[in-house]
This record gives sequence, C-alpha cells and structure tokens, in this order.
Amino acid sequence: MERQNIHNFGAGPAAMAKEVIEATAKAVNNFWEGLSILEISHRSKEWINVMNETKALMKEVMDIPEGYEILFFGGGASLQFLMVAMNLLNKKACYLDTGVWASKAIKEAENIGEVKIIGTSKDKNYTYIPEYQIPSDYDYFHITTNNTIYGTEIRKDIESPIPLVADMSSDILSKPIDISKYSLIYAGAQKNCGAAGVTIVIIKKEILGKVQRKIPIILDYQVHILNNSMYNTPPVISIFTVNQTLKYIKKIGGLKKIQELNEEKARLLYAEIDRNKIFRGTVRKKDRSIMNVCFVMEEQYKQLENEFSEYALQKGIIGIKGHRSVGGFRASIYNAVTIESVQALIKCMHDFEQLHTH
Amino acid sequence: MERQNIHNFGAGPAAMAKEVIEATAKAVNNFWEGLSILEISHRSKEWINVMNETKALMKEVMDIPEGYEILFFGGGASLQFLMVAMNLLNKKACYLDTGVWASKAIKEAENIGEVKIIGTSKDKNYTYIPEYQIPSDYDYFHITTNNTIYGTEIRKDIESPIPLVADMSSDILSKPIDISKYSLIYAGAQKNCGAAGVTIVIIKKEILGKVQRKIPIILDYQVHILNNSMYNTPPVISIFTVNQTLKYIKKIGGLKKIQELNEEKARLLYAEIDRNKIFRGTVRKKDRSIMNVCFVMEEQYKQLENEFSEYALQKGIIGIKGHRSVGGFRASIYNAVTIESVQALIKCMHDFEQLHTH
Repeated sequence: MERQNIHNFGAGPAAMAKEVIEATAKAVNNFWEGLSILEISHRSKEWINVMNETKALMKEVMDIPEGYEILFFGGGASLQFLMVAMNLLNKKACYLDTGVWASKAIKEAENIGEVKIIGTSKDKNYTYIPEYQIPSDYDYFHITTNNTIYGTEIRKDIESPIPLVADMSSDILSKPIDISKYSLIYAGAQKNCGAAGVTIVIIKKEILGKVQRKIPIILDYQVHILNNSMYNTPPVISIFTVNQTLKYIKKIGGLKKIQELNEEKARLLYAEIDRNKIFRGTVRKKDRSIMNVCFVMEEQYKQLENEFSEYALQKGIIGIKGHRSVGGFRASIYNAVTIESVQALIKCMHDFEQLHTH
Repeated sequence: MERQNIHNFGAGPAAMAKEVIEATAKAVNNFWEGLSILEISHRSKEWINVMNETKALMKEVMDIPEGYEILFFGGGASLQFLMVAMNLLNKKACYLDTGVWASKAIKEAENIGEVKIIGTSKDKNYTYIPEYQIPSDYDYFHITTNNTIYGTEIRKDIESPIPLVADMSSDILSKPIDISKYSLIYAGAQKNCGAAGVTIVIIKKEILGKVQRKIPIILDYQVHILNNSMYNTPPVISIFTVNQTLKYIKKIGGLKKIQELNEEKARLLYAEIDRNKIFRGTVRKKDRSIMNVCFVMEEQYKQLENEFSEYALQKGIIGIKGHRSVGGFRASIYNAVTIESVQALIKCMHDFEQLHTH
C-alpha cells in the first residue's frame, strides 16, 4: 500500500511528519561530507551544533524561561520514574494515580522514599482525572498529564504549592503550556517529538541538590547538566529526529497553530463518537484527551468489533486497537496525524454504522 | 567531499558499513507499507520480527550457548555500570582498573557495595594491562576488554573462578570469543554493532536473583528478560542498525573472517608506527588493541602535531586526534573501517615522514 493511503493511529512509536522522515533518511545517507549521521562523532562540531540547535529550538518553541535546563536521555520515560525520585525525593512525595504509567512511577518512587497517592481513578478503570488536594509539605507532586492507554488528559496547567513534576510523554508539544508552573517535565520522544530512543527532560535547576542520598552518577541530573547531556554517548539519531520535528513545528506556526489543529481533529472525532449509534466514548467528557481518543462499541454491537477492525484496515486505517486493559478502540491523533486521516476514520465509522443500522 | 574519499577513524560513533547505512536509510523512508521504521509500533508483528531476528542473529554470529539471554537497553554502557552492581553485587566485587571507563564502572559500584581493585595500570597512564589474581570469594570480577582511550586490549578470554563481567563496548563482534567464560557481557553499540542509542547485554540467567537488595524496576535485568527487552519502548532505530550489522557480518563470513581482517589491519598499522621515525606507539606491545591504535610523535617531532593533523585531513583522514588524556593520535579501526582506509593512513604517515626527515 502507498504511504498516502495509510492512516496511522498508533499510540507510539507513532506517525511522523513526512518532512521529518525525509530529512532523517537524508541524514542517514549523508549528513556531512558523505558521512552518515550514524557514524559521526558525538564530539564533532557538526554534532554539537545539532545538540545546541535542538536545545535552542526547544526553548523557543516551548517558550522555556531562564533557569531551566533541557536534557536528552536514553532509557525511556520509565528511567525517569527512577531518576525523578532519586534526585528530588528527600523525605516524601505525592503522586496522582491516573493509570498504569502513573502506577509504575509510583512503584519506582516507593523504593526510594515515602509516597502518598493523593488521588486515584482506579475505581473506574482510570476513565477520569480524579479530584485531589495538593499538600504543602511534600517534596513534589507528580502527575501524568496525558494517559495514553485510557485517553484522559489534564488539560490545563495546574497550580501547585510544591514543585510540580509532569510526565508529558504523550502530550508534550501538543499545545502551548506555561513552563513556569512546572519544576520538571519529562517525555519519551516517540509520540510528538521524534523517534523512540530519547527522553526529553526540562528541569528547573534550583530544585536540584536538595536530597541527602548519594545519587548514582548516571542517574544524577546535575552530572548530565554539567556535561550538556553528553556525559556518555547520546542517542544521536533519535535526537536528530527531535531537532527536525521542532523545526517542522516552528515552520508550520508553532504550538498555537498545532493546538488549533489538534483541537479541531479531536472535536471532529469525539463528535462522531457521540453521534454514531454503534460507538461510545469511554472517558468522562471533561477529561477527554486531545491526543488519545478511546471508544468502544455499544453493548448490542460488541460482536462487530473484529469486523470493524477488518473494515477499517481495508480503508488503510491502522493502529486503532484499544489497549488490552480498556478494550475496544483507540485512535491516537498526535501532531503528525493529519486531519485527512481523522476524516477517513470518521467516514469509516459512519459507513460502518450505515451498514449495520439500516 | 565524496564518501569514498573519506577515511573515518573516529572512536565512536564510528564508521559503519555502507550496506548497513543504506538499509537503514531505506527503512527510515519505507519499512512497511510505506511507513517509516521511525513510526511503526514496537508492538507490531513487523517490529517483533526484527527484535527476534536480531536476537537469533546475535546468538548465531557470537555462538551464544543455551542459558544466556540477549537484551537491548537505552541509556548507554554507563547505565550498565550501575545495573551490573545493582543486580550482581551482593557483598563485594572485584574490578580491574584499566582506564577512565573502568574507573567509572568502579565508582558506580562503590556506591552499591564493597569494591576491591585487584589491578591497575594508572601508574603509567593505563598504557598496559595490569597483572592480577582473581580472588575466589567475590561476587564477580569486572573487566573492560578494550580500552578505547588508551588502546589497550585483553586479547584472550580469561579464566575466572568467579562470574566474569565484561564491558566489551569497543571490541565486541571484532573476533570470536568463548561466551561460556563470561557471565555478563555488555556493549554500547556505537563502535562495532550499529548506531548509538542501544546497549547490548548478554547475560547468563543463572547468575541473577542472588542479591538481597530491592532493585529498582527499570534496572532489574529479570524484569527486562520477562518482557523480551520491551518493558518500555525500546530504541527501535538503533536496534534496527544492530540487526543490519549482524546480517552484514554473517554475509561476509562471520567473526572468524572479521578477525582475520581486523588483525591484518592492525598488523599493517602497528608495523608502520614501529617503522616510521616520526611516530611511536604508546602501549606495551603485548597489550596493543586491535581496535584502537594509539601513537604519538617522537619527542623531536612533537611540534609537527598540528601539521600532521592538517596533512591527514587533506587526504580525507578524519577522527585521528588522540583523546585529551593521552594526546597524539588514535586510529580506531573497527570492523567497518576498510583496509583501504588503513592503507591510506599508512601512506599518509609514510609521506609525512619523507617530507620531514629528508
């Protein structure tokens, strides 16, 4: 099948902009003087230029104020579950439990210090964002802003009396945010930022250096800040894709424009889910994610699940199988998923309804 | 400059085989049905096939016996310094100190438990492999088989009465080894295995589960074994380059053939260093590395260093600047560096000698 006929709704690694893919393929073939980006030294000035440019672009696109450092790590966001606790959890920290990934962050932190869960939506399989009150005497408050599996999202920057730490793996770069409200943001790149293999960390420097424990060297943010993310060899090619993604976002109008596009895609798709007799959304409306749209079949149509999957596949629609802990369907509509793809899915749902309700 | 006129002696990320680069560029453009390898799900059967094939190829090419598991991690070999100690250091471990990277492994382990250094060559700036006696009552013995910075190498598989752990970042896949002599091998990919961003771990399963401490989830080898290296999203594109590199090695005749080529390249280059009046090797001859060839200028020619660098650059020779802690020059002649490149360097050294000694 041709690329233009495929609609990729995968949850991550996910659709990437054509320009980013083409620029990366070009750099793999020839980045500098005929050499591949895969074989140039991370100490070369050509590479250091890419690193510094990527940081500058991130700062510009996300409007990151002074006092913050931007870092790139291998090891995935799951490694940050541990690094956050190692670097920031002195006595006790509080966490919001909004799903599997939040729970994993909590479990990792519990090995390091005292953890209080100040809200959970486990009772309803994480289909809403729970209420919570942030205590003022904890080291930090950890949230997962978007819950990829369940399709819930904390849509606004929240006010916190203590340092706010956010796993933004699946909604970073989807809209403008007020960075100053956060003390630490981390995100695996493989949804909105680029290829799998790199995790971005944005950190307010003043929150570091306050824990008593001896932090393992490789897990110490201060070590990585001192070494400009090159304490050891960085994941070069994955960082390159982040660089290209940021350039692309800037070119098409920045995060405000991205937000408009994302909200329009989500609005159209949720409208179809709410209209269509066969499907229903799984998430409390006010907590619906702009990035991951979860829906299931109404009880009387449940037996049509496989048929719908097949039907969608014939239209080139891939990656819509829901996570096993939710079932049904999930359309991830990250930045690089076009409105044409969303329209194709909507038409597919609509046509399928016609086939089965008339 | 054209690729064929560049001779890349970089220490890593380093030269890669043309076939591997081309296959990777192709996969970035179109891996499956027009989709890039960068945007396909790590849970798709297309990707899981790549993962499983890569493990099978590794097993075949390295002749890995039953009872071992092959894992892929992000985070670099430096993360393994910590993981090794976390997973294996119950009471005390012994280490061989053969340079900066060995020292970093030691420092990381010292935060975890008792560490004994049973040999060091620090007295002569790590220009030789020290003598040592392996005690029988330690949890494991850690070595760095090849020391990239200094150009020393433990050229034979050693016998150890306790589990042997080896950082093989810069000489893995350079020759056949007897895996059964090792309990754990780890290696950053960016020298002989593929692109930066993935670290390969080969582990004898029976050595796990023997420490008392609570291991952080993301650092626990057993968690990664249970999840086939996909506890979280793996560094997809970097693993793909490992897959292609292994296919390439197999195609050209396996590790025995690779060893012949590497030994011939090293023999030619060291012969020129020993013959040439202007240069001398820095390493004790019996400990000379087949991968990283370090040499400096004889005292009376020291002022010609910059001139030689410039002269070499004009011939397309790049990446030969020695590490700052050794000075002089270093030619890394990993698997993908061709004999033609080595001959070009030898000719360059020879011609430079002619210019300055006649």
